[in-house]
Amino acid sequence: MTTTKTKIIIDTDPGVDDALAICMALNSPELRVKALTTVFGNVSVEQATQNALFLSQFAHDLPVYTGAAAPLIIPPNGYPAHVHGQGGFGDFPLPTMPADLLAQSLPAADYLVQATREEPGDITLVALGPLTNLALALQLDPSMTQRVKQVVVMGGAAHTTGNVSPVAEANMYADPHAADLVFGADWPITMVGLDVTEKTILNEALLATLPDDTQGQFLKQASAFYIDFYRQAMGLDGCMVHDPSTIAYLLNPALFNHEPGRVRVIAEGLAIGQTAIAPPHLEFMQAGWEDVPVNNICTDVDSQGVLDTLLSALRNRQTA
Amino acid sequence: MTTTKTKIIIDTDPGVDDALAICMALNSPELRVKALTTVFGNVSVEQATQNALFLSQFAHDLPVYTGAAAPLIIPPNGYPAHVHGQGGFGDFPLPTMPADLLAQSLPAADYLVQATREEPGDITLVALGPLTNLALALQLDPSMTQRVKQVVVMGGAAHTTGNVSPVAEANMYADPHAADLVFGADWPITMVGLDVTEKTILNEALLATLPDDTQGQFLKQASAFYIDFYRQAMGLDGCMVHDPSTIAYLLNPALFNHEPGRVRVIAEGLAIGQTAIAPPHLEFMQAGWEDVPVNNICTDVDSQGVLDTLLSALRNRQTA
Repeated sequence: MTTTKTKIIIDTDPGVDDALAICMALNSPELRVKALTTVFGNVSVEQATQNALFLSQFAHDLPVYTGAAAPLIIPPNGYPAHVHGQGGFGDFPLPTMPADLLAQSLPAADYLVQATREEPGDITLVALGPLTNLALALQLDPSMTQRVKQVVVMGGAAHTTGNVSPVAEANMYADPHAADLVFGADWPITMVGLDVTEKTILNEALLATLPDDTQGQFLKQASAFYIDFYRQAMGLDGCMVHDPSTIAYLLNPALFNHEPGRVRVIAEGLAIGQTAIAPPHLEFMQAGWEDVPVNNICTDVDSQGVLDTLLSALRNRQTA
Repeated sequence: MTTTKTKIIIDTDPGVDDALAICMALNSPELRVKALTTVFGNVSVEQATQNALFLSQFAHDLPVYTGAAAPLIIPPNGYPAHVHGQGGFGDFPLPTMPADLLAQSLPAADYLVQATREEPGDITLVALGPLTNLALALQLDPSMTQRVKQVVVMGGAAHTTGNVSPVAEANMYADPHAADLVFGADWPITMVGLDVTEKTILNEALLATLPDDTQGQFLKQASAFYIDFYRQAMGLDGCMVHDPSTIAYLLNPALFNHEPGRVRVIAEGLAIGQTAIAPPHLEFMQAGWEDVPVNNICTDVDSQGVLDTLLSALRNRQTA
């Protein structure tokens, strides 16, 4: 009997919660992480690539492709060093890495097109940062939508308050034009937004249960800074589990409630970055909502289930 | 013992549900309707003034002041004749009115300033249409905010879908710049938006219980067209009780649940007309939310209570 692993490409701007999500995925026997593609967001794309290369060492064969350095159209907003630290991994200092540990020469968007050509219908895209690389790939080859199994996006806010403005979540705010292209394309998207990711809180006591090996030590140290941000900014005992929620969704979608919705991402003005959601069959006087595809919007979550899934994966070590 | 009536000025674009709200207010002994001010919206401002003059005949002394014919900045969107009929009162034909029944010469915005100077602290403004007149009055005299008892606005959508776009309600959409000025001013506003007004449905069987006098006959005939729109467009048995919900709020605020929120009205782009709402004490990276006053957002309603209040008032006849 062969076990079919779900093949995923993780598009990422690591980032503490990206690191948690990537380690979670790498440690999960149900998943096969084919590559990391990097994008600006929590850090610059150069730093994101260095961080992704560092994380790739926790896997046997995990190529890293460098992607977009800036949004499609709007000027960059800068990097939230107060949340993820200067380098993206809190105050964990990135060690000197092997001289031969380099990113691939193919740009991330081209790789996404190529990978889905090589394995049509097999690949799930997991987007943990701004959606610029996915939008660039769509522009390179619009037919890619037909070759992707599904897209799981960490981002947006459906029925809850945003985290950059009252209506905007950070990943969507970072490149709203790209996000609107991605949500407007004809592929199945699951939006794992603040409605669910803010409900799951990971604290230091739980993190302390991770193995004391290189990966465990790294995650504990990087997360300490991130958790401290949540404590000081919001009085929370622990950090919100944003990016790992996408991996929990892949491992056990039954942990999530969702509803169908047509998403447009507002690309201008005070509401920039908002995921505005139209119910599937409602018509509106305002133009712009006619041909928006219906996608899958996570609205609620079994937080304990996500935490259990996350911790169980983070304690696991794959033996290839 | 003197009974103190709540003095209100109704700013209105009649409109079937405006007519229901105005008759409801006129028939309520707890309220003293000082004047109607008219604004474009459901119909042109000229038609709105004619309709307001018609309604003024149901009162003993109800002056009508003509207000704005168009939004502050955006071009007008046209009038929804499919909802309220060509003339605003469904297919009820406006009768020839007495030759001496005329609107006052003072413009609505000037009247609002003057009235609140004459009775500082006493007057409640009830806004049933686009907020253009209120914004113009604020521009004439910003200190007016200190002389108004409260402002009750029919409009906006807090946690529910809009009716012009997924995020925008019609009155806010009609003049978002005016609405943003009004919600940005320092006076106590209660937002009676779609979150509550869409929950109360008035059907023909209930309307049939109104007296068979001139007012009752008028309301039944005007509402038939409006109810037919809701039947055909949404499959509802009855019309949504938008404007009368503001009067129900004045008569019995306990029928409504509300939450505090800082409202900005989006004035550009795809989200134009949205009432974006920030929780009172949350800070955001995005600029523009720092000095927005906290107001009162209705979030839920005792629909049966509103219907009972509405019908009880509509069956009543004031004997001054």
